[in-house]
Amino acid sequence: MRSEKEILDWLRARLKRARTRGLALGLGDDAALLRLRPTCQLVVTTDLFLEDVHFRRQWMTAAQAGYKAVARALSDLAAMGAAPRFLFLSVAVPRALGRRWLEQFFRGAVKTARAFRVALAGGDLGSAQHGVVVDVTSVGEVERSRALLRSGARPGDAIFLTGTAGLARAGLEVLRRGLERRSVFAPAVRTHVRPVPRCAVGRYLVRRRLASAAIDTSDGLSTDLNHICEESKVGARIEASRIPLPATAAKIRDLLRLDPFSLALHGGEDYELLFTVPAARVRRLPAKIQGVRVTRIGEITRARRVVLVEVSGRERVLRAGGFDHFR
Amino acid sequence: MRSEKEILDWLRARLKRARTRGLALGLGDDAALLRLRPTCQLVVTTDLFLEDVHFRRQWMTAAQAGYKAVARALSDLAAMGAAPRFLFLSVAVPRALGRRWLEQFFRGAVKTARAFRVALAGGDLGSAQHGVVVDVTSVGEVERSRALLRSGARPGDAIFLTGTAGLARAGLEVLRRGLERRSVFAPAVRTHVRPVPRCAVGRYLVRRRLASAAIDTSDGLSTDLNHICEESKVGARIEASRIPLPATAAKIRDLLRLDPFSLALHGGEDYELLFTVPAARVRRLPAKIQGVRVTRIGEITRARRVVLVEVSGRERVLRAGGFDHFR
Repeated sequence: MRSEKEILDWLRARLKRARTRGLALGLGDDAALLRLRPTCQLVVTTDLFLEDVHFRRQWMTAAQAGYKAVARALSDLAAMGAAPRFLFLSVAVPRALGRRWLEQFFRGAVKTARAFRVALAGGDLGSAQHGVVVDVTSVGEVERSRALLRSGARPGDAIFLTGTAGLARAGLEVLRRGLERRSVFAPAVRTHVRPVPRCAVGRYLVRRRLASAAIDTSDGLSTDLNHICEESKVGARIEASRIPLPATAAKIRDLLRLDPFSLALHGGEDYELLFTVPAARVRRLPAKIQGVRVTRIGEITRARRVVLVEVSGRERVLRAGGFDHFR
Repeated sequence: MRSEKEILDWLRARLKRARTRGLALGLGDDAALLRLRPTCQLVVTTDLFLEDVHFRRQWMTAAQAGYKAVARALSDLAAMGAAPRFLFLSVAVPRALGRRWLEQFFRGAVKTARAFRVALAGGDLGSAQHGVVVDVTSVGEVERSRALLRSGARPGDAIFLTGTAGLARAGLEVLRRGLERRSVFAPAVRTHVRPVPRCAVGRYLVRRRLASAAIDTSDGLSTDLNHICEESKVGARIEASRIPLPATAAKIRDLLRLDPFSLALHGGEDYELLFTVPAARVRRLPAKIQGVRVTRIGEITRARRVVLVEVSGRERVLRAGGFDHFR
């Protein structure tokens, strides 16, 4: 590994071609200088991505790790309906990993940033004693008072989900069991390794003022729906039969012996958008937004609990069963 | 350790009293919503603080670690002359450490944020496999085109340093050798554990348009001065006899057998401001700024190398000898 300055110079050279609207000063000083549209609010979030906690090096290449670190962070902006603008990458790698891993990580991250039209504006580099440490700060902007909060859901609102639920968790199981070469599992592995942040959907919902609340399904549907209900001081009722399972759900059940419903409810990292729409606006919602299918899965209720109507018709309280770092 | 939500609730309760000007939405959603003065530029920086890389748990309490993580991050804003406004703390701790460490860390961080009138606006919480992981994102604002860059130094500018140089590095040695109970070393240990970011000095320099360039001495005087010279495409000439050594320099030499000059040149983490002032403005610079002594240590030159004039009068090229994570 060469010096910090050499790594920085390499990165600056790679970024020369990048879009820099609003970026008055990028890498190489004590901080970055940014300019945002004065009619917008600033949206900021940070997202840890740690080896052996959030990812395993043997399950993804360095470039894929770079992709996923950025995609996860952008998903939080998508859940606010914000347009992503700037990224800051703090990265520490063990010396033994060598410079090549770091370079490939940055290649993946920078390519992803470009694809989503976000500028890499800064960050921090360091060595790590154990395992790769990544923290991504993403900065976006949203029209004033139009951000999609967790707290905006009201009784009677319909609950929608983009894409499908549970596939990323199935992909994680495939990787754990070393089955990633079986082509039937390719969609699951891809969803785990390369989730697509729903930035375009978030922007669509904000521009058309369709959603009353939103969150991304990073922790799992049950946990994320409970987050919305707690922050909005409401309850919810969702129907198992309406939850959009992936096309390979039957294969996942038969070959992995995992219940696709359970994965859909409690498996995290799908990075889809879970959002609520006031009843009067539901008919304005298309079946697909920016090419992504949206499915109505239930409604917000006054009673402050989340209820799941099972396929049998039986009802039960759905507690947060997704991932929690501290449990 | 209880759940992520409980930790978050505890933190939100603690922050209720905090100043929130410009903070439209803080902890608890997918991202924070911020408002800044439209006449200002946004200044953003991130700063990793990793156990066994940037700090050792046995050398500082959790509250002290919280202090230092925040102080280091604010120092980068000080070096831009920016007014600090918001902080984002990403923190991951090993499960074995227990909730108490995390609570004390946040107590230290929140207290420090308040002291510098910065709002804790968000972050991320996680578990760590090995060692505590902290990354601090700091957001500030600075009057348009007035930020203190590394690239603004011009030949003929005078070079100044706040406070003294080398004390934090001496403090690190004291801790390494287990001598921290000896009162003669208290100032050195304090500087290592509780460095004071020079935010007020940075703001003073910006408001009075006194400085042409600035950096904080996080990597060490030789490295940081070389950064200014590289970015400004200039050289520098500093005099060893003018470098402000700490009052305890003789004790450090005699008792630790370390050369105070060498510590001053290459020891990092003092978090003082190293800045340049155009010759015509030097007389407007007071001997103390906001209670902090400033010392003229040399001048910027056209020849693109950094030269040290030793006490003997001999001149030599001063290369970056401070800390580098990748060397």
